Amino acid sequence: MSELRWDPLKSNWAIITTGRGRRPQEFLTPRERLPVTVCPFCPGKEQKTPPEVYALRHTGSGSNQPGWQVRVIPNKFPVLKIEGEIDSRAHGLYDRMNGIGAHEIIIEHPDHERDMADLTGSEIAEVFKAFRARMIDLRNDARFRYLFAFKNHGIEAAINMPHSHSQLIAVPLVPPMITTELSICRDYFGHKERCLICDLMMQERQEKVRVVRDDGNFLVYAPYASSFPFELRITPLHHGHDFTAQTDQQLLALGEAMSDTLKRLRSTLRDPPFSFILHTAPPMHLRKGRPEYWGSLPFDYHWYIELAPKLTKMAGFEWGTGFHMNPTSPEEAASFLRGAEITLRP
Amino acid sequence: MSELRWDPLKSNWAIITTGRGRRPQEFLTPRERLPVTVCPFCPGKEQKTPPEVYALRHTGSGSNQPGWQVRVIPNKFPVLKIEGEIDSRAHGLYDRMNGIGAHEIIIEHPDHERDMADLTGSEIAEVFKAFRARMIDLRNDARFRYLFAFKNHGIEAAINMPHSHSQLIAVPLVPPMITTELSICRDYFGHKERCLICDLMMQERQEKVRVVRDDGNFLVYAPYASSFPFELRITPLHHGHDFTAQTDQQLLALGEAMSDTLKRLRSTLRDPPFSFILHTAPPMHLRKGRPEYWGSLPFDYHWYIELAPKLTKMAGFEWGTGFHMNPTSPEEAASFLRGAEITLRP
Repeated sequence: MSELRWDPLKSNWAIITTGRGRRPQEFLTPRERLPVTVCPFCPGKEQKTPPEVYALRHTGSGSNQPGWQVRVIPNKFPVLKIEGEIDSRAHGLYDRMNGIGAHEIIIEHPDHERDMADLTGSEIAEVFKAFRARMIDLRNDARFRYLFAFKNHGIEAAINMPHSHSQLIAVPLVPPMITTELSICRDYFGHKERCLICDLMMQERQEKVRVVRDDGNFLVYAPYASSFPFELRITPLHHGHDFTAQTDQQLLALGEAMSDTLKRLRSTLRDPPFSFILHTAPPMHLRKGRPEYWGSLPFDYHWYIELAPKLTKMAGFEWGTGFHMNPTSPEEAASFLRGAEITLRP
Repeated sequence: MSELRWDPLKSNWAIITTGRGRRPQEFLTPRERLPVTVCPFCPGKEQKTPPEVYALRHTGSGSNQPGWQVRVIPNKFPVLKIEGEIDSRAHGLYDRMNGIGAHEIIIEHPDHERDMADLTGSEIAEVFKAFRARMIDLRNDARFRYLFAFKNHGIEAAINMPHSHSQLIAVPLVPPMITTELSICRDYFGHKERCLICDLMMQERQEKVRVVRDDGNFLVYAPYASSFPFELRITPLHHGHDFTAQTDQQLLALGEAMSDTLKRLRSTLRDPPFSFILHTAPPMHLRKGRPEYWGSLPFDYHWYIELAPKLTKMAGFEWGTGFHMNPTSPEEAASFLRGAEITLRP
């Protein structure tokens, strides 16, 4: 009927429906599409956005002109502002810090009509190269403690610009959930001199039932204690703590894994809203400052991408407890995705 | 523009829009109502539910017959099942436990058309008395480690039965988020011999700007580092760790505070979907087993209710980091709610 499962990486439980759970067709609701208006992310509209901070361009095209393949711009409406010094202080029992940070938009492709699932592996690799370039630049800013690269797709995942894009946010602190994950990996390495994420992959490759895809470069699997139906991890088989140290060749393999995975999700769940987020080690200046706290990087952490379609509604119980009811077991989800037909968009 | 704020009770940060944030009318979207079909929670349909485990009844009415004011039944489709022994084991690096627990439905009122916000304080007090009675019964079951009483309202908060009801779930483990909160309170008390939640209330009553309502029994305030717009805590001014030890008189005061708060929210945000969850100490058998872990209850913990309307969409960033972007500061939210007109439903 149902089972409680614990994930050592997240140190959290989920309630999983075992046996026959909710099948993909039970999650199909009409997907809203945003109205088409003048899109500032389209080629020819470069003057409507802040000046670009990175672009992959065809030879001969000038900055902030058409002729780009991937384009990164500061968000016109950032949640955190780049100007100013960090001002951190107590407010009675509470703490406050002014909202210093960076918020950039990665426009993934010039074509307004193509979602990330329509892109080829090598096209998506160019998006990951943009992540890498921007993260290498931003991590030099000593005010920033962590960099989040993520993508939301679909209105239900809070997207209000239809042109396919990802986001990068630099924050002046390491959020507790990330600190917890880093500490768990550090403790595990401290006890065993092995990486927890490598060990989890070894178990998943032995059991096979939760593996969606294994091409020898990246393992795509549904975590044993998935909090959400069709939740996935895309993890490099080659151990490494730092996304920004990945070669072009590794990012090409990541692009292929992502392109294939998104096509499987789209075919199984009919263009579901989804989010993914890149988990990687914090910038090195943190480690230099507090090696006792940040552990023995590069050994103890392992970067990966966490991806989940947004199919269920979160309510009181999940919010108040942090543990989720997942109506589709990861074994079933992986089986549906393995069997998915990979088609291009009609 | 925006500010990062830290809450010592949750040990977490939120990004809060300061200055002019999103105002109530910007959150108004059409609220879906569920279709009216034959409702098994209505009087006269008692045979369509599992037999009741508690009811407040008019004199002379028989079990599982009409004549009740509040009625508690086991959920026909429970997420956790009551039969069986706990079977907890490792699965390689992971852990699993069979899905043992309890899942009950508290039908709050016989009238299908009245939501909780339509009820009087004394009517809501009867719902809280049902929580208390069922928690006192379920906590005797040594398999259960924690009891969650909560309510979801509205389709967006995952409700699929329109007749107003709350839920009670007993789980065979204490979820990490609850353990964290209990440890934080225990550590604070260990250092200061004072309750953190009492100290937070003292600061809120001094600053006043985030207080919605203070009747000398319960303080209703928007937490300084609210993760969600219009998030609220309803906290008893009288210190106590255990909801089940509250007297009828205290529950009447809680009912009044809840009734008034829900009416303010409904008038400000036009019947928003919302959830609330009761935070209380774990059952005492846990404390007897591991006093070193569960601390010096009744001194170090303080029960309260956490309430939030569901107005924003959660996506990748919030999910991956556990920290939220809140577009309405708690100072603004409290000011709107203080000024709300308290009207009965038209």
